[in-house]
Amino acid sequence: MFYLVIDILGTIAFAISGVLVAMDKKLDPFGVFIVAFVTAVGGGTLRDLLLGNTPVTWLLQPIYIYTILITVVLSILFRKQLKYLRTSLFLFDTIGIGLYTLAGVEKGLDADLLPVMCIVVGTITACFGGVIRDILCNEIPVIFRKEVYATACIIGASSYFFLIKLPIKPNYIYVVCILIVITVRLLAVKFKIALPTIYPPVESKK
Amino acid sequence: MFYLVIDILGTIAFAISGVLVAMDKKLDPFGVFIVAFVTAVGGGTLRDLLLGNTPVTWLLQPIYIYTILITVVLSILFRKQLKYLRTSLFLFDTIGIGLYTLAGVEKGLDADLLPVMCIVVGTITACFGGVIRDILCNEIPVIFRKEVYATACIIGASSYFFLIKLPIKPNYIYVVCILIVITVRLLAVKFKIALPTIYPPVESKK
Amino acid sequence: MFYLVIDILGTIAFAISGVLVAMDKKLDPFGVFIVAFVTAVGGGTLRDLLLGNTPVTWLLQPIYIYTILITVVLSILFRKQLKYLRTSLFLFDTIGIGLYTLAGVEKGLDADLLPVMCIVVGTITACFGGVIRDILCNEIPVIFRKEVYATACIIGASSYFFLIKLPIKPNYIYVVCILIVITVRLLAVKFKIALPTIYPPVESKK
Repeated sequence: MFYLVIDILGTIAFAISGVLVAMDKKLDPFGVFIVAFVTAVGGGTLRDLLLGNTPVTWLLQPIYIYTILITVVLSILFRKQLKYLRTSLFLFDTIGIGLYTLAGVEKGLDADLLPVMCIVVGTITACFGGVIRDILCNEIPVIFRKEVYATACIIGASSYFFLIKLPIKPNYIYVVCILIVITVRLLAVKFKIALPTIYPPVESKK
Repeated sequence: MFYLVIDILGTIAFAISGVLVAMDKKLDPFGVFIVAFVTAVGGGTLRDLLLGNTPVTWLLQPIYIYTILITVVLSILFRKQLKYLRTSLFLFDTIGIGLYTLAGVEKGLDADLLPVMCIVVGTITACFGGVIRDILCNEIPVIFRKEVYATACIIGASSYFFLIKLPIKPNYIYVVCILIVITVRLLAVKFKIALPTIYPPVESKK
Repeated sequence: MFYLVIDILGTIAFAISGVLVAMDKKLDPFGVFIVAFVTAVGGGTLRDLLLGNTPVTWLLQPIYIYTILITVVLSILFRKQLKYLRTSLFLFDTIGIGLYTLAGVEKGLDADLLPVMCIVVGTITACFGGVIRDILCNEIPVIFRKEVYATACIIGASSYFFLIKLPIKPNYIYVVCILIVITVRLLAVKFKIALPTIYPPVESKK
C-alpha cells in the first residue's frame, strides 16, 4: 500500500515533467501522452527489464496508465496555468526522483542484489525515465550535462543502507531517504552546486 | 499459420519503410539493413521484452531475418524504382501498422492482459518500430508530430473487443480490424484529419 | 575464467571509447560515467534482454561496474595523456569488438540458437554498446555510416562455425576468431576499405 502510494505520486510528478518537455517540442497530443508516459514509467520499466520482472508492472496494473492519462489531459487543459508553474518543473522532478529512487532500491532488495546494485537500480529507476524522455525529444539527456541530479539519488539510496542498521522502522527510513534525495537536489540548485567540470576553461570556450 | 503470414507481410512492409528513411540519411548498406531490421522487428521486440516472451521471436525464427535481408537487398537493387514509389511510403506503413496492431493484440490476449492493455500492446507493436527507426536516425519520432497514426491503431485494436462479442469467426474479426486500422489512416491522410493542435497559433509561429 | 577475462578486457576497452565520445560532448563526470558504462555493457545488456538472461550479468557481478568506475576515474585524471591517444580510439574499439563478438557467440550457443542467430547475437554484443552510446550523445550511430565495423564482427563470428568443425581446441578457436575480427577491421581502416556506397555521386553532392 505504502509502496503503491509512492509510485502513483511519482508517476504524476514525472508525467507532468514529460508533458512540459513534450509541449516545448510542439508534439501533438498523442506525442505528449507518449513522452509523459515514457518519462513516468521508463525508469521503472528499464529496471523491471534488467531484473527480469516481466510482464512489467504497468502492463499488469492499469492504474498507472489511467493516472498518466488523467494527468496528461488535465495538464493539456490547464496548460496556460502550467506555464506559470514552469519554474517549478524542477520541483516536480525532484519529488519524483526521491520517490522513484527508494521504490527502485526496494525492488533491488526484493531481487537479493548487493547494496551497491540496489543503489544503481534505484538511480536507474529515478533517472532513466528522464533520459528516455530526452532521447525521444532528440536532446542529449539533461542529467548528463548539469545539476546534481543522479548524485542526489545515489546519496539518498546509499543513506538507506546506513540507516537500515539503526533501530528505526523501515517506513520511516524510506521517508527520510526520500527527503534526503529531495533536500540534496534542492540545496544543490539553490546554491548552484554542480559536479566539478573536468574540462579546462580554454577548451570550453570553442 | 494465419498469424505467421500476417507477421511476414508486415515485416516486408516495415522493412521497406525503414530502407527509405535510412537511404534518406545516406547510411551505408549495413546501416540501411539495421534500420530496416529495427523498423520491422522493433515494435514486436519491445512487446516481447515488456511481456517477458524471451528469447524474442526473431531469434528463434530465422525467417524474419532472411525476409528482411532479401527485402533490403531487393530494395537497394531497385532503389531507383523505389524512388518513384516514395509517395507510397505511407501505404506500406499503413498496411504494416494494421497487420502489427492485431498481431500485438493477440500476444496481449495470450498473456491474459486486460483489454485496455492488449490495445496498448497492439499499438506498441505497430508504432514503436518506427519510433526506434526515427531515434536511430536522430529524428523526433514522426508519429509524435503529425498524422492520425497511433490513433488508427487504437481504434482498430479497440474494435476487436467490440466485435469479439458478436458471433463472428475470429479470423474474420482479425481481417476486419486490420482493415479498420488501414481505413482510418487512409481517410485521415486523404482528408488531412490530424489530432487537434494544443498550441495557440501565435506561439507556433516562432 | 577465460570468458571472464575476455569480458573484463572488452569492458575496459569500450569504457575508454565511451569516455572519449562523452568528453567530446562536454558531459559532466556523471554523464561521462553513464556513457562509458552504457558503451561497455550496452551490447551485452541488449543481448541478455533479447535472450531473457535476467537479471542481466552486470547486476549480479559487481566487478563490471567497479572496472568501469576505475577506468572512468583514471581516464578523467589522465585525460590530457588520453588526448594524445585519441588516434588510438579506434584501436581500443577494435580490440573490444573482437572480444565481445566471441563472448556474444558463446551466449548464443548457450541458448541453443542456430549458428546464423549466434552470429547476430555476437554482432549485437559487439556493436550495440556503441550504437546506444551514439544515441545518448545525439548522433546517428557511427557504425551505420562508415568503416567496416559490423562486417568484421560478422566475418569473425562466422569463422567460428567453420573452425569449430576442425580438430582444434575451442579456446584456440576463440582467440583465432577474435584476431580475425581485429585483423579485418585494422586492414579495412589501413586500406580504407569501406562498404560500397549505394548512392549515385550526383545525389551525394547535395
